[in-house]
Amino acid sequence: MIRRGDIAHLGHVELLTPRPAESAWFFEAVMGMEREAQEDGSVFFRGFGDYERYCLKLTESPRSGLGHIGLRASSEEALERVVASVERSGRGEGWSSGDVGHGRAYAFTDPDGRRFEVYHETEHYRPPDHLVPPMLNQFQRRTGNGVGVRRLEHVNLTSTDVRACRTFLEGSLGYRCFEVIEMGDGREYGAWMSATIQGHEIIYVLEGPAPVGRLHHAAFWVDTREEVLRAADLFQDHGIFIEAGPAKHTPIHSFYLYVHEPGGNRIEVTSGGYLVLDPTERATTVWPVERYRNSRAWGRGFPPSFDTYATPPYEEGSR
Amino acid sequence: MIRRGDIAHLGHVELLTPRPAESAWFFEAVMGMEREAQEDGSVFFRGFGDYERYCLKLTESPRSGLGHIGLRASSEEALERVVASVERSGRGEGWSSGDVGHGRAYAFTDPDGRRFEVYHETEHYRPPDHLVPPMLNQFQRRTGNGVGVRRLEHVNLTSTDVRACRTFLEGSLGYRCFEVIEMGDGREYGAWMSATIQGHEIIYVLEGPAPVGRLHHAAFWVDTREEVLRAADLFQDHGIFIEAGPAKHTPIHSFYLYVHEPGGNRIEVTSGGYLVLDPTERATTVWPVERYRNSRAWGRGFPPSFDTYATPPYEEGSR
Amino acid sequence: MIRRGDIAHLGHVELLTPRPAESAWFFEAVMGMEREAQEDGSVFFRGFGDYERYCLKLTESPRSGLGHIGLRASSEEALERVVASVERSGRGEGWSSGDVGHGRAYAFTDPDGRRFEVYHETEHYRPPDHLVPPMLNQFQRRTGNGVGVRRLEHVNLTSTDVRACRTFLEGSLGYRCFEVIEMGDGREYGAWMSATIQGHEIIYVLEGPAPVGRLHHAAFWVDTREEVLRAADLFQDHGIFIEAGPAKHTPIHSFYLYVHEPGGNRIEVTSGGYLVLDPTERATTVWPVERYRNSRAWGRGFPPSFDTYATPPYEEGSR
Amino acid sequence: MIRRGDIAHLGHVELLTPRPAESAWFFEAVMGMEREAQEDGSVFFRGFGDYERYCLKLTESPRSGLGHIGLRASSEEALERVVASVERSGRGEGWSSGDVGHGRAYAFTDPDGRRFEVYHETEHYRPPDHLVPPMLNQFQRRTGNGVGVRRLEHVNLTSTDVRACRTFLEGSLGYRCFEVIEMGDGREYGAWMSATIQGHEIIYVLEGPAPVGRLHHAAFWVDTREEVLRAADLFQDHGIFIEAGPAKHTPIHSFYLYVHEPGGNRIEVTSGGYLVLDPTERATTVWPVERYRNSRAWGRGFPPSFDTYATPPYEEGSR
Repeated sequence: MIRRGDIAHLGHVELLTPRPAESAWFFEAVMGMEREAQEDGSVFFRGFGDYERYCLKLTESPRSGLGHIGLRASSEEALERVVASVERSGRGEGWSSGDVGHGRAYAFTDPDGRRFEVYHETEHYRPPDHLVPPMLNQFQRRTGNGVGVRRLEHVNLTSTDVRACRTFLEGSLGYRCFEVIEMGDGREYGAWMSATIQGHEIIYVLEGPAPVGRLHHAAFWVDTREEVLRAADLFQDHGIFIEAGPAKHTPIHSFYLYVHEPGGNRIEVTSGGYLVLDPTERATTVWPVERYRNSRAWGRGFPPSFDTYATPPYEEGSR
Repeated sequence: MIRRGDIAHLGHVELLTPRPAESAWFFEAVMGMEREAQEDGSVFFRGFGDYERYCLKLTESPRSGLGHIGLRASSEEALERVVASVERSGRGEGWSSGDVGHGRAYAFTDPDGRRFEVYHETEHYRPPDHLVPPMLNQFQRRTGNGVGVRRLEHVNLTSTDVRACRTFLEGSLGYRCFEVIEMGDGREYGAWMSATIQGHEIIYVLEGPAPVGRLHHAAFWVDTREEVLRAADLFQDHGIFIEAGPAKHTPIHSFYLYVHEPGGNRIEVTSGGYLVLDPTERATTVWPVERYRNSRAWGRGFPPSFDTYATPPYEEGSR
Repeated sequence: MIRRGDIAHLGHVELLTPRPAESAWFFEAVMGMEREAQEDGSVFFRGFGDYERYCLKLTESPRSGLGHIGLRASSEEALERVVASVERSGRGEGWSSGDVGHGRAYAFTDPDGRRFEVYHETEHYRPPDHLVPPMLNQFQRRTGNGVGVRRLEHVNLTSTDVRACRTFLEGSLGYRCFEVIEMGDGREYGAWMSATIQGHEIIYVLEGPAPVGRLHHAAFWVDTREEVLRAADLFQDHGIFIEAGPAKHTPIHSFYLYVHEPGGNRIEVTSGGYLVLDPTERATTVWPVERYRNSRAWGRGFPPSFDTYATPPYEEGSR
Repeated sequence: MIRRGDIAHLGHVELLTPRPAESAWFFEAVMGMEREAQEDGSVFFRGFGDYERYCLKLTESPRSGLGHIGLRASSEEALERVVASVERSGRGEGWSSGDVGHGRAYAFTDPDGRRFEVYHETEHYRPPDHLVPPMLNQFQRRTGNGVGVRRLEHVNLTSTDVRACRTFLEGSLGYRCFEVIEMGDGREYGAWMSATIQGHEIIYVLEGPAPVGRLHHAAFWVDTREEVLRAADLFQDHGIFIEAGPAKHTPIHSFYLYVHEPGGNRIEVTSGGYLVLDPTERATTVWPVERYRNSRAWGRGFPPSFDTYATPPYEEGSR
C-alpha cells in the first residue's frame, strides 16, 4: 500500500530541444546552471542547491517538449511500494538500469501517456575543485553567473483529463492535491499536486488546442522575489522572450516569470509561495472556476498564448 | 534669469475628492500616512520621510482631480528669480499669504491652465510625542501601518500639448527633461521632467479623450521594490482596485503599482529607478515613439484605461 | 511504531510573561499578529497564514519562559502511534481534554523536563467579517500592521544534554535532525530538528550557565528578507531591544533578527533558508565544532548574551 | 564665485594596488564590472549604469590606497568657476590634458594633500556589440556576472582634520554637508558631503593611527538591499574577506557591506539611503558624538579594524 511520503520529491526533468546548443547556452549562461555531465546527446545541468548531481537533462530531439520526469523514492522499501502500486494501476513499464547520476529506475506513464521514472539510489554531488563551497551545508559555491537557479521546483503539464491525472498521482503515488479548479461541467481546470509540503511539485492544467497532454513549463527556483525581478532584467538584456510576469500566482501565491528557452520550451523562474502544513484533506482549496477567475491575485495576468502554447507546438490539423 | 536648481523639489500635491472620508481612510489606513493637520475641508497627510509638514493636501470637492502642485524654491532669492521668470511668461497669478505649513506663495498656471504654487518659507516638521524617532536624522518614527509611504515622488499630468508644458517648465522654471517620446507628427507623447537628479518629479503625457489636461496620477515613494509588492498584497486585501503593475517602467526604470483611491484619483506606489548624473543635455533620452513601443521594459503593460482615464473623469459629449 | 510524518508540524508555543499587557502590545501592535482569543490569563495570537486559530498562547506568569509546545499529529492514527511511542519512552504524562482551538491532547516532557502536548483535532480558523480575505486560499486578509507575521516557524530550546533531547525526538516522535554540531568531548553543541522538510522546527542548543534547559527563543516567519529588514526598522522605532541580526544563520542559511519582547523572552523574526529534500540520513550535516566556528555564514555574529541569556533568566547562585 | 551644482557629481576613483592581477579579477569576476580600457599599468572598469566610460581606474603601485578622485564639473563655465575658486584657496596644482575617457583636467589637493581632478569634457560610453542594450535609456546591457555594480557611489577618506576638509569642500567646491559628528573638543569625527541630493558622495572620517589622511573605502552601488545580501553570499563563496555588514548605516541610512579587495583596499557594496531634498542649511544633521554613539541604526556594527585600517596600511613607527 502506497504511503504519503513514499515519493520524496521531484528529482529531475528531461527537456527535449531541437536547438541543443542554444538551449544549453540558455541554461548555462543565462540561468546560471552548471553543466555537470554530457552523454549521448544529452547535457545534464544542476542548480547550486541540488544535492543530487543534476535536476535538468537536456536532450537533443526533433521536437521540443518533455522527455521524462524523474521522481526520487524515499527508500528502497518506498520504491518497492511505489512500483507495486503503479503495477496495480496497469501503468507500469518496467525497470531500467538507471541513468547518469542515479541507479535503477522503474518507468511508468501518467494517464496522458507521459513518461515518469522513479528511483531511490542516487549519487550525491561532489563539486570539482573550483566549486568547493566554504560551508559544510552547501553543495557547491555560487558562481554569481546569470539568474542563479537553486533547483528545479515543479513541472506543469497540460492534460486532456486533469481529474484522471490527479487521481492517478493521489491513488498510485501518494501525492496530495493542494488546489483544484472545478469547472461546472464536472471537468477540472487545474490541479496543484505535491509529494511534500511544498505547494506544488507537479501541476496539471487543462490542455487547450491539442488532443494530447504536453509540457506547459518547467519551473526553477530562486531564493527571493528580488531575484525573479533581476532575472527579468537579465532575460530582457539577453534577448530572451518574456511571456508573462513577474507577478503573483493565485494558487500557492508564488511569484512567477515565464520565458521561452531557445528550444521552445516554456521555463518559469519562481520564488515565494507558501508551505501547506495542514496534514488533512482540509488542506485542499477547491476553486469553482468562476470564483477563481473573479478573485485572482494581483498582476496583469497572462496573454492568450499561455492557454494555448505548450511543447511540442501543436498546429491545428497537423496531426 | 532662472537657474537650474532654483526650484528645489516638488513640495506637495493637492488632490480633490468627492468622497473625502473614504479618501482620507485610504491615505491613512492603507497608505499608512500620518494625518498632520485639518483645515477648511482639507486634510494634510505626510510620509515618514517628509521634512516639511506634509506632502499631500486632500480637499473635498464635487469632482476628483488636481487642486494644485506646490514647489519649494531653494532660497528667497531663487523664489524671486522664479517669480520674475514666470511673470515674463505671462502665466503668473500673484502672491498669496501661504497655507498650512508654508509661507507666502506665488501662484501660476502651466500652459494647460493647471495651478502651481511656489514658496520658499516652510515649517520643518515637529513630531508629536508618540512619533518622536530614535535617531537625529529621522523626521518621525515609522508606525508600521499599511503601505508605509516615505514621501511624494512625482505627479503625472495629462496634457493636450506636452511640448508646450515641457518648454514652459524648462524655460521658466529651470526644470530639465530626462526622457521625451516624440511622435512622427511633431507632437510629443510624454516628457519626464525634474528639478533635481531624480529621474522624474513632474511628468506630462498626452491627454487622450478630454479637451483639457487632467491629473493622470500622483506617485508616492516606498524604499524598496519588495515594499511595492507588499503594497499590492495590502491593496488586494483592502479591496482597492489595482489598475496596473507591479512592473518596471520603461522611462527611468522605476517599479510601479497603480491603484485608484476611493475618490477616483489614480495613485502610484513606486520605488527604484535611477538618478540622472550627466549634467548636460546629453542626459535626455529622446525616444521615437515606435522605438519606445517596441523596446518596452518587461511587464505585461497597461490596460486601455491607462490611456483614457484621468481625473476628473471625462465623458465624451459631457462638456 | 512511530513513523516519519506522524507529527505533522509545530502547532503553537505557549510563552510565559510577567508583563502580560506589554507582551500583548508587542505581539499585537509591533509584530502585527491578531488577538484571536482570551481565556484564563492567556491571550491567543495568530499570524495571517495560520490555518489553525493561533500559533502563540501568551500566559501571565511570575517568570518568563516556555509554557509548552503544541505539536499537531497527522491523523488520529498517527496520534495513537505518537502516544504509544512516548509511553514506551516513559516520558508520557497523560491526556487532557484540550485547549482553546484544539481537541484532546497528550502531554509529555522532553529529557529536560519541558512540557509538550500533541493533538490532532483542531479548529480551522474562521475570520471575523473585517478579516475575510478575497481569495479562497487565504486564511485571513493582511492588515498591514507592524511586522506582519505569517506564522510560528520554530522554537529553540537550551538543553544541558542536546544529544538526549535529539535522540528522544528522533526515536519517540519521528523527527529528523538536519544539522548537528559535535564537540570534541562527545557532547553535542546544537541540533536542528524537523518533522517536515523545513530545515528546523525545534532546535536544541547547549545551555550555558543554568543547570536546566530553558527557552532560547521562539521564531516567527515573514515571507522575505526585506520584511526582516523592515522589522528591524520597526523594532528600533518602537524601542524594542535588538540583540542580534539581521544576518544569515550558518545552519539552514535562514535570515535572522533577534529581539527581546517586553516579558523578557527572546523572539526571532526569520525568513529564507532552505528545504531539505534528501529523504535519507545523508541529509544530515555533521559539523565538528571547530569547522563550524571557522566557516560561519556572513554577518557580525552574536553578542555574549546570546550564549548565556535564556528565559527564565538565571542568576548564578540563585537556585 | 563657486555655485552649488558647479561640481555635477563624483566621476571616478583611482585605486592603487600592489596586486594588480588579483585586484582586476576581483572587480571583473566578483564585482561584475566591465574592463573598458587598459593603459600604462592601469585598467579602467565601469558599472552598467555609467554614462561615462568608467568609474574606476585601477593602477599598479607598490602600495595600496587612493590615486586620485575625479569630479565632473557641470559645464565649461562651472569648471572655470571651480578652478578659480580652488586657485583662490591656494590648493591648485594646474591643468593636465586629461586621461582615458575625459578631457583637460585641473588638479588640486584637499587639506590632507590628497589628489583630486576636476574636468568637464567627457566621452559618453559606446558599448561594444555584445553589450548593446535593448532600451535607449540603458548605457549597456547587464551581463548578470557577479555582484553587478551599477556605478561608483561615494569615496570615504580618513583625515587628521575633518573640519578643514569639510570647509574646503564647502567653500571652494560648493559641496554641502548633510551629516556631521561633533566631538566635545571642537574636532569633528565625520562629515558626509555631497555635490548633489545624494546623501553622500565624499565622506571624511577621523584618521585613527596614521599621521596622514588615507583611503577608508570606495563604495559601489547596487540597486537593492537584496543585491547587497546576494553580494555577501558571493563574497563568501569567492573567499573574499568580509569585514562588516550587511547592515544599516546611521548616517543616510544606507545599507552597507564591507570587504577588502585583494590589493588591500576596503570596498563597500551599498544600496538604499535617502535623498536630501531640503535646500537649506537645515538639511544638515549635527550629531554630538555621544548622541551618535547611543542611537545607532540597527546592526552589530564594526570590528576595531574599521577604525584603524585604511590604505595604504600604517604600521606604528613605520614612518
